[in-house]
Amino acid sequence: MDKLNMSRHISGKFNEELEAVRNQVLNMGGLVEQQLRDSLHAIEKSDHELAEQILQRDYKINALEVQIDEACVQIIAKRQPAASDLRLIIAIFKTISDLERIGDEAERIARVALESFNNDQQQFLVSLENLGQQVLAMLHGVLDAFARMDLDAAFEVHQMDAQADRQYEALTRQLMTYMMEDPRGIPKVMNVLWSARSLERIGDRCQNIAEYIIFFVKGKDVRHVSPESMEQTVKGAR
Amino acid sequence: MDKLNMSRHISGKFNEELEAVRNQVLNMGGLVEQQLRDSLHAIEKSDHELAEQILQRDYKINALEVQIDEACVQIIAKRQPAASDLRLIIAIFKTISDLERIGDEAERIARVALESFNNDQQQFLVSLENLGQQVLAMLHGVLDAFARMDLDAAFEVHQMDAQADRQYEALTRQLMTYMMEDPRGIPKVMNVLWSARSLERIGDRCQNIAEYIIFFVKGKDVRHVSPESMEQTVKGAR
Repeated sequence: MDKLNMSRHISGKFNEELEAVRNQVLNMGGLVEQQLRDSLHAIEKSDHELAEQILQRDYKINALEVQIDEACVQIIAKRQPAASDLRLIIAIFKTISDLERIGDEAERIARVALESFNNDQQQFLVSLENLGQQVLAMLHGVLDAFARMDLDAAFEVHQMDAQADRQYEALTRQLMTYMMEDPRGIPKVMNVLWSARSLERIGDRCQNIAEYIIFFVKGKDVRHVSPESMEQTVKGAR
Repeated sequence: MDKLNMSRHISGKFNEELEAVRNQVLNMGGLVEQQLRDSLHAIEKSDHELAEQILQRDYKINALEVQIDEACVQIIAKRQPAASDLRLIIAIFKTISDLERIGDEAERIARVALESFNNDQQQFLVSLENLGQQVLAMLHGVLDAFARMDLDAAFEVHQMDAQADRQYEALTRQLMTYMMEDPRGIPKVMNVLWSARSLERIGDRCQNIAEYIIFFVKGKDVRHVSPESMEQTVKGAR
């Protein structure tokens, strides 16, 4: 926590508020991670009930997004944060937006899984396993990096996305082959393709969150920069 | 402009800064709209050169996003905005993030179009026409609503998304039928499906921007609320 320099705030109340909002983000992140983990688990075990639970839980994530957003606005209005406090608030604003959408993607995957169970299609769903585990590891890693505002961990997650992209490409090719071999199975395979796309998008969003962490720690916007330039920012003088 | 209540700022400089950042957002919106319009045009006319130009222009949108983000952080740090000024800044933060991603989707469509021209596949691309025009109308409408911070116009765009979703569903079914009829054509049709998905996502993002406008004008967060509750917020006492 010393990186957040909280001790220098004169107002103990301000500290408490920042800490509370940070905890809410971690709480939200935990819920989102659970949703993704459960959606992969539901696929693996063909667990109908678990998939239903995922659909019923999504509203909690949405509610947390709105609450945290509101808390951030209050802090800006009341505390007029500057420098790294302000960057933290901005990073939180952006992070929760990506977290909420990761939650939506997990919900989409659960919905597809439910449809697939009903139609006896789970044999295709298992091909999502590798990509799913890679993306889950990215989400876990980036939430951990956020909790500690750890630059190196954030950079590591950012680099993991290349592997997720490769897995996604390979999976897409494989699923297209299935479709060509058995055209009657196209609607089933399409469902799996949409889920693969959802997973790929979750990887992109983890990458976004990694960029917000780097922005917070280094004060430098690393979106849309070259990989070399990002590495320089991360590894440069601290 | 009177809705923005700018006249009440004691600092003329603050007015200028807010106005400048608002103009940058409109500028960015104009670029993004052009990218989407051009990508649809490139498909319709099989215009290779136009599609290439779209790919080359995307960096401008990214650069504007970073600039505007930075300008907003500066304004918060220097001017400590409250109430509706702060809501405007927050709405801008969120809007430009969605605009940037709409730009990315337009770029994706142009990329698919280029591939399709090279492989003589444009016959499928024309099926995107209806959905493309609907989504372009949504983007145009929401940028117009943003320029005037017009609550009713924002609400109208929000409601247009249901039609875009129906068009997307119909198109997906049609494309799946093509695939089943001619399995060798699956990779071509898949490309068109990805573009359809991009368009559908652009519609969702226009809906997001409409929600930020409502948040700015009414001070109420209308994400994740029921359609009835949103209508009440929009049509309620002003």
